[in-house]
Amino acid sequence: MSEGVEWGLHCAALLGFLPPGAGLSTARLAEYHEVPPAYLAKHLQAMSRAGILEAAQGPRGGYRLARCPAEITVLEVVEAVDGPTPGFRCAEIRRRGPAGGLPLREYRVPCAIHAVMDAADAAWRAELRATSLADVISRVVGGASPKSLERGARWVQEVLA
Amino acid sequence: MSEGVEWGLHCAALLGFLPPGAGLSTARLAEYHEVPPAYLAKHLQAMSRAGILEAAQGPRGGYRLARCPAEITVLEVVEAVDGPTPGFRCAEIRRRGPAGGLPLREYRVPCAIHAVMDAADAAWRAELRATSLADVISRVVGGASPKSLERGARWVQEVLA
Repeated sequence: MSEGVEWGLHCAALLGFLPPGAGLSTARLAEYHEVPPAYLAKHLQAMSRAGILEAAQGPRGGYRLARCPAEITVLEVVEAVDGPTPGFRCAEIRRRGPAGGLPLREYRVPCAIHAVMDAADAAWRAELRATSLADVISRVVGGASPKSLERGARWVQEVLA
Repeated sequence: MSEGVEWGLHCAALLGFLPPGAGLSTARLAEYHEVPPAYLAKHLQAMSRAGILEAAQGPRGGYRLARCPAEITVLEVVEAVDGPTPGFRCAEIRRRGPAGGLPLREYRVPCAIHAVMDAADAAWRAELRATSLADVISRVVGGASPKSLERGARWVQEVLA
């Protein structure tokens, strides 16, 4: 999984803390998380294409959440950044070697090993689909250092002022 | 995930079809799956170190399963080949930027985003832990092309003769 998943989730969570209508530019989001703006831009654009973020023009412009946090799942962010491809890639090695080489119609039933790995991938995605950005934000509020929340809030106020 | 996971699971499944006491060398397992022997050797050694396979010496030597297939989980094979590291790697970016830089004691509670990704990883592993190599073999028998099973059985008989 790319480091962009961590960046994308942190950016989405931060945007969830902003007052209604406010946004943050790629440069500001990169500054807050101390990550390279050019790489981050790519992930933010992907999240925008996926309907998670929207880009607003103007002096109060920048990225903001396109929906309320309860209606954005963690899975959406992960798939926007990393794509929907499972971690396990089946190379269909069952078709090779002395037991392979049969016509394609002999391989209609998916390989048992592929099926098992797909079931695990589905369990992973189900967990991420069951968790909303609102859940993440509520866990951040409940678990983050109060000093860190205070510093973050002060930074947001200065930037939006 | 490395392609070695697919190779390791296919090798373990094939070894589960052998008659008691019989084994297959790295060269034979590579031939059957048409994969590079040197790379496969590394994965077989890892599975051996993990107690999934055992290497027997002598004319009927080679790798065989170290336990019966019902007592080997798919997760064990996956972790032997790819290690136990989750796909998501937390770089603790919460500690960076204007809200970060606090003393380590302020970060005792795991990052909410890390926790969510860890929960999904646990669901993935639970699914793989609940599936035994015996389950995989039974699905291979139920779903593979009869012609492929026949070719595989003939190859095994010739090689072990």
